[in-house]
Amino acid sequence: MLGTMLENVRKICPLIHNITNYVTVNDCANILLACGASPIMADDREEVSEITSICAGLNLNIGTLNSRTIDSMLIAGKRANELGHPVVLDPVGAGASRLRTDTAMAILNTVRLAVIRGNVSEIKTLASGSGSTKGVDADVADRVTEENLNDVVAFAKALSAKTGAVIAITGAIDVVANGLKAYCIRNGHPMMSAITGTGCQLSAMTAAFVTANPAHPLEAAAAAVCAMGYAGELAHARLGELDGNATYRNYIIDAIYNMTPEMLEKGANYEVR
Amino acid sequence: MLGTMLENVRKICPLIHNITNYVTVNDCANILLACGASPIMADDREEVSEITSICAGLNLNIGTLNSRTIDSMLIAGKRANELGHPVVLDPVGAGASRLRTDTAMAILNTVRLAVIRGNVSEIKTLASGSGSTKGVDADVADRVTEENLNDVVAFAKALSAKTGAVIAITGAIDVVANGLKAYCIRNGHPMMSAITGTGCQLSAMTAAFVTANPAHPLEAAAAAVCAMGYAGELAHARLGELDGNATYRNYIIDAIYNMTPEMLEKGANYEVR
Amino acid sequence: MLGTMLENVRKICPLIHNITNYVTVNDCANILLACGASPIMADDREEVSEITSICAGLNLNIGTLNSRTIDSMLIAGKRANELGHPVVLDPVGAGASRLRTDTAMAILNTVRLAVIRGNVSEIKTLASGSGSTKGVDADVADRVTEENLNDVVAFAKALSAKTGAVIAITGAIDVVANGLKAYCIRNGHPMMSAITGTGCQLSAMTAAFVTANPAHPLEAAAAAVCAMGYAGELAHARLGELDGNATYRNYIIDAIYNMTPEMLEKGANYEVR
Repeated sequence: MLGTMLENVRKICPLIHNITNYVTVNDCANILLACGASPIMADDREEVSEITSICAGLNLNIGTLNSRTIDSMLIAGKRANELGHPVVLDPVGAGASRLRTDTAMAILNTVRLAVIRGNVSEIKTLASGSGSTKGVDADVADRVTEENLNDVVAFAKALSAKTGAVIAITGAIDVVANGLKAYCIRNGHPMMSAITGTGCQLSAMTAAFVTANPAHPLEAAAAAVCAMGYAGELAHARLGELDGNATYRNYIIDAIYNMTPEMLEKGANYEVR
Repeated sequence: MLGTMLENVRKICPLIHNITNYVTVNDCANILLACGASPIMADDREEVSEITSICAGLNLNIGTLNSRTIDSMLIAGKRANELGHPVVLDPVGAGASRLRTDTAMAILNTVRLAVIRGNVSEIKTLASGSGSTKGVDADVADRVTEENLNDVVAFAKALSAKTGAVIAITGAIDVVANGLKAYCIRNGHPMMSAITGTGCQLSAMTAAFVTANPAHPLEAAAAAVCAMGYAGELAHARLGELDGNATYRNYIIDAIYNMTPEMLEKGANYEVR
Repeated sequence: MLGTMLENVRKICPLIHNITNYVTVNDCANILLACGASPIMADDREEVSEITSICAGLNLNIGTLNSRTIDSMLIAGKRANELGHPVVLDPVGAGASRLRTDTAMAILNTVRLAVIRGNVSEIKTLASGSGSTKGVDADVADRVTEENLNDVVAFAKALSAKTGAVIAITGAIDVVANGLKAYCIRNGHPMMSAITGTGCQLSAMTAAFVTANPAHPLEAAAAAVCAMGYAGELAHARLGELDGNATYRNYIIDAIYNMTPEMLEKGANYEVR
């Protein structure tokens, strides 16, 4: 099933509109190309409505938001809703500043979202409307472990039921849930946290997967999360003694480029709760 | 002849002012360094006139344009014209939104351009003043093939005669033309379209080549296009089984770094029509 | 001693707030992760005060400044001062435009700086309040050589005494000085100048080093400079025949990722004057 999700991205080549931060934007574009989608980045309020209209899906990432791009996100989000295009929200750093929390909440309250993808601190901030995220990484206190996994699953299902969006909480264990069903995913490698933007890249790729699989948003989001984690495993296996996080970054995108639906089907490591 | 164009870039080390998108800007800077030029990026209206004045050439790329940077492009373009510096325009996504089409037309109508470099859909949009580009890639219907090559050559020559700029249309076959003469270039590799920003990088490099070869804008632009395509071939030949588009991106810049004038002279694959 | 500086970065994992240019921002984030720190990028005036407050150090880089981000730098700098967080300034291109010179001077006059890191032309511009930097590289006339090294050391010590900041002048020979003592550093490789952003990356890393070693700003800054140069040597030794500046860029970050305190202790090549 998850392999089919990737197969459809390769078949349909969805054009994804990204309003995203300038830190990891190049990697987002390259991973979209690697998975078979096509990226366009545009963030000016004068054009985002038109750009969203020629695309098939929208990825909103608040990583380096500013007053100019916040408006653009809301305009593009509303337009995508009118057109029935799936919208992914990556609430980078929600909880770390009032501006980020407020912006994430404004998008959540204005735009019908297909998927919300973030770390557990960011998602908790969205659920409560406030938070104290320390930067762009999850708080240690929040981390998803085998011990609290059932609680996180219940939390994600409840938030999905409330928002209508698939909730993708990523970390050492990933939880991807709708109101009824959660994929608990154990792909990935700890070294992925030594690269900037693996989360942003995953959000962009998730937009491609849900766009290419409109009838299966939960499975599509789970497939994207498994693909990213599995790419992290494959890339790590290639690393030589002198390689570090920069080479690892490239190898992860390479692994997405070379991943076949069959590979993903076999490599995906998840259980359903 | 084309090798000499690269030799002059290495000899003169032109400083190139870039007002470009934030998606591929790092690659643009690194490929300018790879070919022997020196990059500076500056987009605030308060400084672009001064920055252009200390540079030798200007590269305008509308990839993630906004109201702030559009003004800056026009100011820098006019200043470059006053100083006799060559200006390259990359009309990224012209036809995909009114803002992009209007901005490209405004630059075309205000600034004397040395080269316009884009895909065939973008260039057609500039020729007609409107278009329907699907994102940042060329429409399939527009693609340059052996069958329509003579038509594209005639179109490029006519547009060059009208605008005074060398027209560089890149795709599976590249056409680089002034009013009288067109280079039809068959360098490159299809996998280049799986990397974001090879077009942006080529435009930046074209600015360096025409700046270092002021008497030969047509040959300089053709040399840049051949160099980029040939780098794509050399880089592809290095790829291992596990390598994908991220490693390919790096290898292309590496290939420009290691390309000698002699290599370019031999590797350039073109005919003149 | 210098090895201990790196060890403390790895132990403390300082969160560094970066207001930096969009050209090299991804590399800055990845090198911060490579050395053991954690990056956050945020540049909107509505959030920079809060973001700085949750961080431990601040890195200000004027590489692609604009009116919006200049304000943000001043706000963040003042807030960091209130909190006693170290602030690093990278005056990219100071002297190349009035806007850059004025902004660097405004930061210098408003914010108490822990370190100023730039090339010799940029630092001279700061010392005199005006300059004629040609782009973002040092003027040839300004370059630090064995012949003028003592003059540069005296200049750096005087500027440090006047500003209270450690002065880090990087080039073929690096000089890192407070009012009394200067490290003259001979690590590095000439090919580093063929990569965009090694200076920006060093400034980001310097912020991490001084933040993790609050009692030793001079040694911390010197350790960061040695680490960057030594990484340039290690990375260069790995390069194959076909590798160029793009691969070199990745290998430098990789080398920081794999550098142990012991390696830095042995590899650091400096004398004190």
